[in-house]
Amino acid sequence: MTKIIDPYGSELVEDYVKIIKDFGLDSFNPKNYPNPNRLMRRGVVFAERDMKLVLKAMKDKKPFYVLSGIMPTAKKVHFGTKMVVENIAYFQKQGARTFCLIADLEAAAARNISLEEARKNALEFQIPAYITLGLDPKKTIFYFQSENKDVIKLAYQASNKITLNEFRAVYGSADPPRIISALTQIGDILYPQLKERMPGVIPVGSDQDPHIRLTRDAARRMRDKKFFLPSGLYHKFTPSLDGQIKMSKSKPESCIDLPEDIKKVTKKIMRAKTGGRKTTEEQKKLGGIPEDCIIFELYKQHLIEDDKELQDIHNKCKKGKILCGEDKQNCCKLMTKFMDNLHKGIEKAKKEKINLVKFKCL
Amino acid sequence: MTKIIDPYGSELVEDYVKIIKDFGLDSFNPKNYPNPNRLMRRGVVFAERDMKLVLKAMKDKKPFYVLSGIMPTAKKVHFGTKMVVENIAYFQKQGARTFCLIADLEAAAARNISLEEARKNALEFQIPAYITLGLDPKKTIFYFQSENKDVIKLAYQASNKITLNEFRAVYGSADPPRIISALTQIGDILYPQLKERMPGVIPVGSDQDPHIRLTRDAARRMRDKKFFLPSGLYHKFTPSLDGQIKMSKSKPESCIDLPEDIKKVTKKIMRAKTGGRKTTEEQKKLGGIPEDCIIFELYKQHLIEDDKELQDIHNKCKKGKILCGEDKQNCCKLMTKFMDNLHKGIEKAKKEKINLVKFKCL
Repeated sequence: MTKIIDPYGSELVEDYVKIIKDFGLDSFNPKNYPNPNRLMRRGVVFAERDMKLVLKAMKDKKPFYVLSGIMPTAKKVHFGTKMVVENIAYFQKQGARTFCLIADLEAAAARNISLEEARKNALEFQIPAYITLGLDPKKTIFYFQSENKDVIKLAYQASNKITLNEFRAVYGSADPPRIISALTQIGDILYPQLKERMPGVIPVGSDQDPHIRLTRDAARRMRDKKFFLPSGLYHKFTPSLDGQIKMSKSKPESCIDLPEDIKKVTKKIMRAKTGGRKTTEEQKKLGGIPEDCIIFELYKQHLIEDDKELQDIHNKCKKGKILCGEDKQNCCKLMTKFMDNLHKGIEKAKKEKINLVKFKCL
Repeated sequence: MTKIIDPYGSELVEDYVKIIKDFGLDSFNPKNYPNPNRLMRRGVVFAERDMKLVLKAMKDKKPFYVLSGIMPTAKKVHFGTKMVVENIAYFQKQGARTFCLIADLEAAAARNISLEEARKNALEFQIPAYITLGLDPKKTIFYFQSENKDVIKLAYQASNKITLNEFRAVYGSADPPRIISALTQIGDILYPQLKERMPGVIPVGSDQDPHIRLTRDAARRMRDKKFFLPSGLYHKFTPSLDGQIKMSKSKPESCIDLPEDIKKVTKKIMRAKTGGRKTTEEQKKLGGIPEDCIIFELYKQHLIEDDKELQDIHNKCKKGKILCGEDKQNCCKLMTKFMDNLHKGIEKAKKEKINLVKFKCL
């Protein structure tokens, strides 16, 4: 069992150790979390930042919040989004006030998407998808950035707390859409504290940590506001089907969209990198290497909920009792089921009444 | 009479010729404008940018707009503001739809003024002052930036139309508050065209032309929006009492605030630079030099409405029939009257019903 729940139990060990060190994060320990979810139990959630106050609030049943944003650029999401939503849902179940904003202003600034298109995408796809992936529509506050004047005000107030050079250091560039988007994210992340100061956690992929660091800097410098500094929870990437660290739409043959035509997905899975040996004989003799296997990583991160079932596959693979061909067939079967459920769930969730906040004017 | 109505009829000739050349402006000709106001008649308004369509709309009684912003940082304005308001009032009388925004978001970003303080300043001081200086409260649309989501949306949409280097080239710097403020100004300037595309004019001091150039660039690049490019009308600065080109609060002894305690103002006026000769004898013999005289400039720009009265002083000065001492006394008298009227006007205007737009949510 150790291999599976060890946060660094994969070929990607060094990358994630380096992220923890470079960003000044703490290692994640599922023992500190009541009823840890699949991602937490299996070390897919691998790091955290300043989670003490959130954990204390959870324990003491005091107010805290969890927050994430929807980028409404197209009618699809990714496995990374799925993990974010699952971690939001985790904290929601632990009592967190849950905020889910639609980043329509950022989409307009950074991606040149019209606000109307962004609105349509969010209402017809992302919000139902997030609900399907685990958010409770009754307990989640959804809002559009462009309608939330308090977020805008915070963004402007934050603008003189971060220098151009800091933007450049954090993001590598500082073009105007990037700056205005980053300031708006600061506004979004701190917004839930306007009515009541409380700790909050932002679950992200580790590449999103710059936003959290920047928001913490801005919050610290807005002294009179006395904001709690937002905490972070970090999950590993879902690897690319060719074995690279992160699945990316820049390599469509190694990337699975949610949703995507299952025939196409099946073809991609059948070509995925595995931890198999050079020959069948060798594999039967030495066993496979699940730690180096994208199929096993898909099971671990997304497709197999039951720990025992996962451990069983792990053991059989190690002993050479499963060969990669049949394993891929199994993966396709599970993926088909997942895509099917996602599709049906979205259609159902579209009819769900959502908690879309309409902001009143001052 | 020529001296007075010649746009370059002052010691500052070269500076303003250079501005026209450097910024690519056109010289202003009052003959193109029906019933030109004091500033226009006397060459204080000295340049314009792309006014053809506005003039045509004025002539044809077609829709056009005039717009300016209020920076609600303190409970005072300046002679520069007074000129802007007088030029807005001119176009308002010619039928322009008139927009006057309160730049509370910019004040928060660039000046670290709280939105509450900005709101208070605007309602208690700037709006009544603008009304006193000439705006028709019934015909002017006032709004707070922080309440106008359409302006915000335009700002975000404009963010990918201007590069960081362009900001730097136009403003000399590109710190985040400057960028977010400039984007918001673009939003403000184009906002009146959202409901109906129409030409518009922004009356400014010539140091404010960068905003207009930047907005024209952004509007041109937002092709699908088909905005009219905003036009500009430029007035000279009110000179510093010590003779420098622009009155500035950085030299309080040479700067007059509106309003300011008249005793202090009187002292400052009595020390102002004049176009007087070295001795009384010389002045009586050779005459004074009104073109080099701050007192005369104050008459011309602000204190004497009647052209004949101004010309009369000009002639007498040239002939050595007025000496600087008595002239300063006269200036103090006129300034006292002006300050008194301003003060009374503001108190009265505070009770005026204003057209403060409350924006509805989407």
